[in-house]
Amino acid sequence: MRKSIFYHAGCPVCTSAEKDIVNLIGADNVEVVHLGENKARISEAENAGVKSVPALVTPNGNTLHINFGASMEDVKG
Amino acid sequence: MRKSIFYHAGCPVCTSAEKDIVNLIGADNVEVVHLGENKARISEAENAGVKSVPALVTPNGNTLHINFGASMEDVKG
Repeated sequence: MRKSIFYHAGCPVCTSAEKDIVNLIGADNVEVVHLGENKARISEAENAGVKSVPALVTPNGNTLHINFGASMEDVKG
Repeated sequence: MRKSIFYHAGCPVCTSAEKDIVNLIGADNVEVVHLGENKARISEAENAGVKSVPALVTPNGNTLHINFGASMEDVKG
């Protein structure tokens, strides 16, 4: 399996999410890229569809943005 | 390992994220809960810290909200 790539910027929520992702997927299956320290890779991330961090680009090219989205109130409605 | 729980509400982004998560973690390691069809579990999800869907609650109790967050422009700044 190709590796996933986890892009982050060192924020607390990024670091927490990184630990969870590495635990879930396995350290061997994910490359962690700190865009704050490695700005040369920002364009690569953008080309992969990353619009925010933290984000996980899966081996099949999908991008999962990890953060707050639609509220639970919307789900109940 | 305890299972992760993936909560969603059947939206397109949910379905896409579900496939990715199941592929990455393995179907045996994640329970998928459709809150739109199973509203009885909304309170359980809220108690686990789910504020939006799709979200993944990890075995150690952390909640990863999967969606759009901070913009890439913020990372560049």
